[in-house]
Amino acid sequence: MTFNCLTIFPEMFTSFTGTSLCAKAIEKGLITIHLYDIRDYTKDKHKRVDDYPFGGGAGMLMTPQPLFDCFDAVQKNTKGKKVRTIYLSPGGTVLTQGKANHLQEQYEVLNLLCGHYEGVDQRVLDTYIDEELSIGDYVLTGGELPAMVLMDCVMRYVPEVLSNEDSTKSESFGDGLLEYPQYTRPQEYNGLTVPEVLVSGHHKNIENWQREQSIVKTARVRPDLLDNAQLTEDEKMLICDVKSEK
Amino acid sequence: MTFNCLTIFPEMFTSFTGTSLCAKAIEKGLITIHLYDIRDYTKDKHKRVDDYPFGGGAGMLMTPQPLFDCFDAVQKNTKGKKVRTIYLSPGGTVLTQGKANHLQEQYEVLNLLCGHYEGVDQRVLDTYIDEELSIGDYVLTGGELPAMVLMDCVMRYVPEVLSNEDSTKSESFGDGLLEYPQYTRPQEYNGLTVPEVLVSGHHKNIENWQREQSIVKTARVRPDLLDNAQLTEDEKMLICDVKSEK
Repeated sequence: MTFNCLTIFPEMFTSFTGTSLCAKAIEKGLITIHLYDIRDYTKDKHKRVDDYPFGGGAGMLMTPQPLFDCFDAVQKNTKGKKVRTIYLSPGGTVLTQGKANHLQEQYEVLNLLCGHYEGVDQRVLDTYIDEELSIGDYVLTGGELPAMVLMDCVMRYVPEVLSNEDSTKSESFGDGLLEYPQYTRPQEYNGLTVPEVLVSGHHKNIENWQREQSIVKTARVRPDLLDNAQLTEDEKMLICDVKSEK
Repeated sequence: MTFNCLTIFPEMFTSFTGTSLCAKAIEKGLITIHLYDIRDYTKDKHKRVDDYPFGGGAGMLMTPQPLFDCFDAVQKNTKGKKVRTIYLSPGGTVLTQGKANHLQEQYEVLNLLCGHYEGVDQRVLDTYIDEELSIGDYVLTGGELPAMVLMDCVMRYVPEVLSNEDSTKSESFGDGLLEYPQYTRPQEYNGLTVPEVLVSGHHKNIENWQREQSIVKTARVRPDLLDNAQLTEDEKMLICDVKSEK
């Protein structure tokens, strides 16, 4: 899987690409990240890539020329590949786990345009962008952090990136529920103990407890997620109990 | 505003704190970011900070001791301040623009615990965490990117961080709608022109066009946001037209 990031701050990616899972995935050749510095493509003698918006309004916009030329350079390197070109912006549809999975399954190359200033000239978006994606309902300084979030999320579905194949399955959202509370050694720390069931060795009881805790937590924190979860009649009763707590 | 980040990958923050808005805000003394390396606090002779979960399951958990000691060190430095301690996790309530604004208004210090591995021992969370926050419905490798997203979002509300006071107002979500398409110079690029109304100089018409475009885009991409938007009768008709397109 190849990620092409179009950005005016390529240096913002250094820590991400050099650390943890991402560094290992690059090292093993499982993913490739190319950084395109938009400023390298401007024909403006002062290296400017922004200008005032027509019709007024606060802030500056990224201008067409550098981005058209940058995208043309990207496209030369992705001929014949299954490519999706995404603009990271709070104005897009919202990223979900399912979406990340879909992107990994369907495409070989993701081009990620990181906006800055107040936005990007619409003609650029109309010409090159397949899809506008938001990582959530909040505004950030630029599209670099969202691009890293998207890459992190997508690369976890690339085979062999995660050492344990189970990891994407048992996590939050895997079964439509939030994860249950977890405990590790020591069994007692500062007088705080691990729930007895977890040290009982009784697998069925442990499983039941974990499932119940997941449901209770989801009902308390994110009741909206329960609409899509598959629940037994007893589990639905449990949710009613949680709701009546309030 | 002070941000204390508790992490096992402090180096992941370097590019963020050294670039763009964040670097300027730190330089001007408007915000402070302290990085606490959790590994510095482990008493394990192999510097381990993780262990297997009780009850089985994939992956490792962050153990109590290093985090208890790290939090105690953080608390020594924040006495008498209005502090909020947040665990970044997909199992939390979801970050919104309003939430970021609220955190900036109510607190002087945000402690941000960045999880890794499969999660954190629940006793740590029960003891220190005021609030679990998620940046969206997807799973990431660790809490570092979410912590940066949260800091970026929150610092934009710190007075003087943004040069133009209007910037947080006219952006997406400011009025419950997505932003309208924007255009900058040149008026024609590769045969693509700017909508005529924007170069008309007629402010009322421009404003009407922008409002209409915002509504149309929101209706197409994020109809869920319209429930909370204040709309005139004509605007409600416009939304019906967009819906009937499908």
